Amino acid sequence: MNANHDPSTQAPATELLDRVDSPADLRRLPRAQLAPLARELRQYLLHSVARTGGHLSSNLGTVELTIALHYVFNTPEDRLVWDVGHQTYPHKILTGRRDRMHTLRQLGGISGFPRRDESPYDTFGTAHSSTSISAALGMAMAAKAKGESRRAVAIIGDGAMTAGMAFEALNNAGVADGRLLVVLNDNDMSISPPVGALNRYLAQLMSGRFYAAAKHVGKQVLKGAPPLFELAKRLEEQAKGMVVPATLFEKFGFNYIGPIDGHDLDSLVPTLENIRQLLDNDEGPQFLHVVTKKGQGYKLAEADPVAYHGPGKFDPAVGLTKPATPPKPTFTQVFGQWLCDMAAADQRLVGITPAMREGSGMVEFERRFPGRYFDVGIAEQHAVTFAAGLACEGLKPVVAIYSTFLQRAYDQLIHDVALQNLPVVFALDRAGLVGADGATHAGAYDIAYLRCIPNVSVACPADEAECRQLLSSAFAQDHPVAVRYPRGAGVGAAQPAGLEPLPFGKGELRRQGRGIAILAFGTLLYPALAAGEKLHASVANMRWAKPLDLDLLRDLARTHEAIVTVEEGCVMGGAGSAVMEALQAEGFTLPVLTLGLADVFTEHGDPGKLLAQQGLDAAGIEASVRARFGALLDGASGLKVVA
Amino acid sequence: MNANHDPSTQAPATELLDRVDSPADLRRLPRAQLAPLARELRQYLLHSVARTGGHLSSNLGTVELTIALHYVFNTPEDRLVWDVGHQTYPHKILTGRRDRMHTLRQLGGISGFPRRDESPYDTFGTAHSSTSISAALGMAMAAKAKGESRRAVAIIGDGAMTAGMAFEALNNAGVADGRLLVVLNDNDMSISPPVGALNRYLAQLMSGRFYAAAKHVGKQVLKGAPPLFELAKRLEEQAKGMVVPATLFEKFGFNYIGPIDGHDLDSLVPTLENIRQLLDNDEGPQFLHVVTKKGQGYKLAEADPVAYHGPGKFDPAVGLTKPATPPKPTFTQVFGQWLCDMAAADQRLVGITPAMREGSGMVEFERRFPGRYFDVGIAEQHAVTFAAGLACEGLKPVVAIYSTFLQRAYDQLIHDVALQNLPVVFALDRAGLVGADGATHAGAYDIAYLRCIPNVSVACPADEAECRQLLSSAFAQDHPVAVRYPRGAGVGAAQPAGLEPLPFGKGELRRQGRGIAILAFGTLLYPALAAGEKLHASVANMRWAKPLDLDLLRDLARTHEAIVTVEEGCVMGGAGSAVMEALQAEGFTLPVLTLGLADVFTEHGDPGKLLAQQGLDAAGIEASVRARFGALLDGASGLKVVA
Repeated sequence: MNANHDPSTQAPATELLDRVDSPADLRRLPRAQLAPLARELRQYLLHSVARTGGHLSSNLGTVELTIALHYVFNTPEDRLVWDVGHQTYPHKILTGRRDRMHTLRQLGGISGFPRRDESPYDTFGTAHSSTSISAALGMAMAAKAKGESRRAVAIIGDGAMTAGMAFEALNNAGVADGRLLVVLNDNDMSISPPVGALNRYLAQLMSGRFYAAAKHVGKQVLKGAPPLFELAKRLEEQAKGMVVPATLFEKFGFNYIGPIDGHDLDSLVPTLENIRQLLDNDEGPQFLHVVTKKGQGYKLAEADPVAYHGPGKFDPAVGLTKPATPPKPTFTQVFGQWLCDMAAADQRLVGITPAMREGSGMVEFERRFPGRYFDVGIAEQHAVTFAAGLACEGLKPVVAIYSTFLQRAYDQLIHDVALQNLPVVFALDRAGLVGADGATHAGAYDIAYLRCIPNVSVACPADEAECRQLLSSAFAQDHPVAVRYPRGAGVGAAQPAGLEPLPFGKGELRRQGRGIAILAFGTLLYPALAAGEKLHASVANMRWAKPLDLDLLRDLARTHEAIVTVEEGCVMGGAGSAVMEALQAEGFTLPVLTLGLADVFTEHGDPGKLLAQQGLDAAGIEASVRARFGALLDGASGLKVVA
Repeated sequence: MNANHDPSTQAPATELLDRVDSPADLRRLPRAQLAPLARELRQYLLHSVARTGGHLSSNLGTVELTIALHYVFNTPEDRLVWDVGHQTYPHKILTGRRDRMHTLRQLGGISGFPRRDESPYDTFGTAHSSTSISAALGMAMAAKAKGESRRAVAIIGDGAMTAGMAFEALNNAGVADGRLLVVLNDNDMSISPPVGALNRYLAQLMSGRFYAAAKHVGKQVLKGAPPLFELAKRLEEQAKGMVVPATLFEKFGFNYIGPIDGHDLDSLVPTLENIRQLLDNDEGPQFLHVVTKKGQGYKLAEADPVAYHGPGKFDPAVGLTKPATPPKPTFTQVFGQWLCDMAAADQRLVGITPAMREGSGMVEFERRFPGRYFDVGIAEQHAVTFAAGLACEGLKPVVAIYSTFLQRAYDQLIHDVALQNLPVVFALDRAGLVGADGATHAGAYDIAYLRCIPNVSVACPADEAECRQLLSSAFAQDHPVAVRYPRGAGVGAAQPAGLEPLPFGKGELRRQGRGIAILAFGTLLYPALAAGEKLHASVANMRWAKPLDLDLLRDLARTHEAIVTVEEGCVMGGAGSAVMEALQAEGFTLPVLTLGLADVFTEHGDPGKLLAQQGLDAAGIEASVRARFGALLDGASGLKVVA
């Protein structure tokens, strides 16, 4: 991308883009118009994301690749599967959703990820990393089984390639005979230091002579030189003897092509055309290594692709600005501060992240304790068992991981940590609804899937102060403990400076009322307190989903007519369910109403609105209790009174 | 191993072995005595496993490797982590457990896997595949953090190496600076055709000149030739230029050594000694490729390592014999038959296994429908998302997977299958307790971890007939359905010949009684019926843990005083919990007793005894009900009677 075309400095121009309402329109354009189209698309994209917020750097990096793929392949008959999927805004714009981009990631609007129910061009819903090769291979093998000639293409980033399931898929695909192309979108070079061997290896490939040669090839084709593929083949074979004798991907059975410049349409289009031919000749699985730059074409994003990874709204001509008043600290920040403080206090603490240093609030920890910080790559399974290994030797690992990503390491948590009862702390960020990212990222299931596992405890802080205190409580235990906290900020409770824990497995009564006892697990304590006020109900801050505070529970059951549980998690099998089990085991048969997330996937949108939709704000809690226990409330004079 | 030493034909001799009660004793032996010790150990092992049953082929294959590792490394200060761990019988025999081998895998006896609470030499509990590199890396990094000089060694098979988490660990370890050795125990050649690219690649490595050269080196060292390592180094470098220019493992940052003959102690010991030196010099992560043969030294096992993978008791001089009367079909066989029948009836069916063709009963299916059979390797994550891809194209994938191994693909089930509501059938074998394999393999959690996920249904057949019928019911749905069935045989119910399904989400009343209604989920229906007889209770066969049969539940709640649920699964969050939730949602507050697996990990032993210990046989169910509802039963005249 030529710097002269930095879109932030130009008035949006969309003459070409206006004529592309589908990939079929795109395929009718002469090839010479693709580069101007890319410029318009990049400009449109920048201004669109600046208006709505969303992912930016990754999408600026895939503009040309998206155009080339839709230009060469017969979408949607040919299947494109975009790994992670937050780089699909150009794809959405070119597949008939240009006019809905202003609704991106908003309630009722289009998703920030591909979704099968949004468009036939979204062949597979993605969001969690590293699923694309498996899915595309499934599609390719299905086509073969059905005698269809369609091709399947997985587009996967170099970060996503480090996850185990990508290798499982490569291992399987390398001996399969479907029409599968894997496009490696290699763009991590410019962001952060490589965290694993694969990243280092890709950097070696890229710095080799072959990359230079391939770039050169692109230019030659432009001038009407011999067909690219033949030349590339020859160069490749020559290069194989000299520089990269056999790439990793060839050892896995793929025909490796590349690396090529992913912003050069004159390299991309003819290379993809040749690969299409190889697929149609059933010459086995193909692998194209494309090099792109995150933030490409917008100087501010190129200079700081991390900051522009997922910005909020901003003025493209100005760029990101600091908010005038510093916002309340997020739970992520509370965790990050606690981690540093506890690390300073206890030499045994080590911190582990599966490639989420920024998201999990570990930047400062890495800076201060580099020898005790482990970024293991997008590798949740390894992260957890690696932590188990550390714990075996007397260290105290803290695994910082989003609730939704711990699903990736469920077996490791059971088999390697819980079964051996090792003291690993799981700091579960993004527990509950997550807002704009939607159903794929919801941390809705952790209480249910953790509490059924022996030896595991689950803490649910109600606010920032408790988050810090319960992390200390978790750290003090000699068994696995998860502390779950939501995305964003809480009520703003002042945090203690020290590291004193809260008692293990103990809750507290926060409001004495009568008739109904509301048991809150986590941050919904505050709307529960507001509802309790209206209902004259008792309200308990339970703090622990496992173990339950049985003393508190018994007291409340003895002195109330009905129990209401409130949690930002699935009702099926969740903390409310645990309360029912405990009450029955203790011989109580009083009515229990469990409030939480319904047994449906919750879509993207504003988290406050989504919680209200599910009846989990103060008004909703009050309304649900009245609907269920109205008679009981009306006859309140007959209710038991707390002693 | 020389055929003359086939241990089955010899009287057991243990003069050397008797002197080895610990690796320290082993290390005091002159090197020349290691080969005779290996012969004794192999003989002891064979006769021991023949007496108890257990894993045989894999253990015959690791005799020399085990001796060499304990001889060269300073165990238990140096950490050996055995992947999967069913090949650790030689390790157990050499680490002070020789006299307990007769208790292997029995209730109260030693485990068939390494366990931290069994011996300090068992540094990490394993059983599920592919955890060893992660754990050993954790130990190596902990040693570094603590300033300790210990080394960590992961011993991993070529099958286990195909799983994603092994690659995640390699990717991380390749850039780490701990004292880590990965020993690849490559033994799959002789068993089954390679199922993935990695297997094919290893076969290429092994067939190359280098292997021959390394074998030669071993012999030269024996004759007092130049030190092995220098020679090997030179040969290696030479070979790199000629045959294997840079192995896959070198691309991951390891120093690759091998392949060497894993039954030749004169290759193993000096090579390991040299590697130990490399570790002590902090020369980065080391990778030793060892080639062994499953069943080595016992001709019958060499000839059929699959049959001798996990035999029951047998006479070593005779080998395995066919039982006189054919046993009842197992649920695994019921599934295998159904799969073939449904595949014949419906072209859309495809079958997927993560490397468990035999265990999951898919041998016949592969034979009859090779084009619709997919063995994806030990790759549960990929298996499930690959199935999702197939389902997107209109096929109907059946994923055959053990309950405990589906834990490996939990996120893929949620994110790729359930969220997109794709019609994938999960045939969950080994649901509930598994007997001799113990806690690591227990399928105790699936009802809890599946029912909290939207769109997922869970069926629990009570016997063989229902297993077949409910698989048909699952297959007929347009959303994800898991059918869970236990290890081994059921009551022996005759299966229908056809493929008629049972109604979706519907149970049945099997016994009309009064007062108490027992709701059984799965095969515990039969002990529940027996208990119901004694208790004059009603007994329902619920069949579906999700969705629950609410009509049946309401009827039972209206006409009984108390509900008892019975399931072979964890009580926390399980089907009983679902019943409580549903009853409360319907406004019923009657007492509920949930019977199932307690919130502890259940050890290995005879499944019948284990169930009885947990009170899940007829007598136990009756006793639990009497203990909880004795008063109610005594006052039976006042009980409601079923209309």
